[in-house]
Amino acid sequence: MTVAKPGGGGAGPNFTDHVPVTDKPASLVRDDDAGAADGGTMRERFEAMIRAAQDRICDAVEAVDGTGTFHEDAWVRENGGGGISRVIQNGSVFEKAGVNVSVVYGTMPPEAVKSASARGVTRDVGYKPGEPVPFFAAGISSVMHPHNPMAPTMHFNYRYFETDRGLWWFGGGTDLTPSYLFEEDAAHFHGTLKAAADVHDADYYPKFKKWCDEYFYIPHRGERRGIGGIFFDDLNDRPADEIFAFSSAMTEAVVPAYMPLVTKRKDAPFTEAQREWQQMRRGRYVEYNLTQDRGTIFGLKTGGRIESILMSLPLTARWQYDHHPAPGSWEEKTLEAMINPPEWV
Amino acid sequence: MTVAKPGGGGAGPNFTDHVPVTDKPASLVRDDDAGAADGGTMRERFEAMIRAAQDRICDAVEAVDGTGTFHEDAWVRENGGGGISRVIQNGSVFEKAGVNVSVVYGTMPPEAVKSASARGVTRDVGYKPGEPVPFFAAGISSVMHPHNPMAPTMHFNYRYFETDRGLWWFGGGTDLTPSYLFEEDAAHFHGTLKAAADVHDADYYPKFKKWCDEYFYIPHRGERRGIGGIFFDDLNDRPADEIFAFSSAMTEAVVPAYMPLVTKRKDAPFTEAQREWQQMRRGRYVEYNLTQDRGTIFGLKTGGRIESILMSLPLTARWQYDHHPAPGSWEEKTLEAMINPPEWV
Repeated sequence: MTVAKPGGGGAGPNFTDHVPVTDKPASLVRDDDAGAADGGTMRERFEAMIRAAQDRICDAVEAVDGTGTFHEDAWVRENGGGGISRVIQNGSVFEKAGVNVSVVYGTMPPEAVKSASARGVTRDVGYKPGEPVPFFAAGISSVMHPHNPMAPTMHFNYRYFETDRGLWWFGGGTDLTPSYLFEEDAAHFHGTLKAAADVHDADYYPKFKKWCDEYFYIPHRGERRGIGGIFFDDLNDRPADEIFAFSSAMTEAVVPAYMPLVTKRKDAPFTEAQREWQQMRRGRYVEYNLTQDRGTIFGLKTGGRIESILMSLPLTARWQYDHHPAPGSWEEKTLEAMINPPEWV
Repeated sequence: MTVAKPGGGGAGPNFTDHVPVTDKPASLVRDDDAGAADGGTMRERFEAMIRAAQDRICDAVEAVDGTGTFHEDAWVRENGGGGISRVIQNGSVFEKAGVNVSVVYGTMPPEAVKSASARGVTRDVGYKPGEPVPFFAAGISSVMHPHNPMAPTMHFNYRYFETDRGLWWFGGGTDLTPSYLFEEDAAHFHGTLKAAADVHDADYYPKFKKWCDEYFYIPHRGERRGIGGIFFDDLNDRPADEIFAFSSAMTEAVVPAYMPLVTKRKDAPFTEAQREWQQMRRGRYVEYNLTQDRGTIFGLKTGGRIESILMSLPLTARWQYDHHPAPGSWEEKTLEAMINPPEWV
């Protein structure tokens, strides 16, 4: 089949085509980015960290699922970088679960560097309007959608950006999207993230919990995608080593924060109506990701690997006209927590 | 339940809240927009035309469906205007079908007037930067998703815009999205639209067919949402009466262009795999509507009635990781027509 090249043209980061590889390289970072001493450059340290996290988290998913195994796609790009997507579809426990790492060497207009950062922090200093800004980005990104409506969906993403003139910042977050709220599950999830963050800065959890509630807001619905967790961006206010340690710790908190909830709920009984409600909540997940999520929109516009970007979408979703949960119902109570986010810990 | 007001704030057209009504008004146009002679102002003539089209098309849908009946929601807005949404869900033939009319009195920044039009035609002449531009808009919008994967989805929308200083333009279109291509169905659909358009201008069909193929493109997929039809916007190059007559004729062509295809395919046999392919194509429909469709994005950003705007989304959809149709398959042949659009008539 002749497949038109998608995402071509435009003011993207000039990605060259993705070249699938069967033997994935030990590092996706360019040789000239490798440092001799001190465990290497931040570029290679971050990539090694997310690769290890990918292995560890995928092992945990397979262990909980029992039968599903990850399908892996690896690719490199001509100008350096590449990625590894791992996806389970129709496992015993997970309807769809994906864990991706990717490394990008690109250039973008200074305006895009600015819009790629959350708060308009000036990252384009010294560039003329329109002058391409070479950048490096590495990230791990994951969404897990279990079959059982009582088991929540979880997303995390940790990333490191660096421009070739030495500006750098970290971003990331981990958040939960239940179809049915269990307060003790919410408390466990938030509590685990808080405990991991507190080791690095006691201000992190409260600040990043609030940021998460703001970030995952669906304006046209007046509600959030889920019940949050943590989210941060543009973090560069202390030595990179410290933020790297924090980011690493947060990838390590993913399994203890989330997997016990899946284990506890994966075999819970549920009704057909509860499955439909879950499918409608997945519809909201799609709405958020396609209309609001900065990473998704950036990826779609700049010619990233589409299947890896849209791995985050659920296997199935539902849009039922003008559906409202019954007053006093469990569904309404769950939705209420997405409209007015409580403190969980 | 306390529901946060969605879509509030921002630089929208200052819609006031929608007030549901049980007795829908004979006209949604303000009294001061009613003309005495010559059948009234274009505002009221267009509204009467789309109201009649809504009745006629809904009757045809119910006749084909056999058991499904439209649920109607009507509303008015404090500052004038309102709308009528009609939706069938889980009918015998239609999984979801909706026909909406709406009338909007709003104001928007001159920049938004510009972006609301397709080609950057200057519609904000005489307004200072940021000065609100009062406008009137009336439109009919519809999407029909049959159950059977052999029966195509169809969308149409016809609209009239007028600013208070007398600028006006028409827009609209009708297009088809099959999961499985039947060339004779495509030829019937396009042929019916062409015959109706040719009465008004022999250049319309070729021009608007091409425009449709451009408009319904999904850049990140490198394919179109479907196999097209006609699409036009900013039409004001001849007397309004003539474009009104053309728009009316196109709403009249909807039933003869589409309903015979549904009647022919609604009971066709299909496999579970074909149903899954249909669900994946519905996923692409969602991707298009949420990331590309100007009307949807405009509506979501400006606080329109969300359930009416998202009525266009299918009841169910599917995202399967990295799915490709088998070489030489019917699915591939269908997709090929969305990648390289043929001439059908």
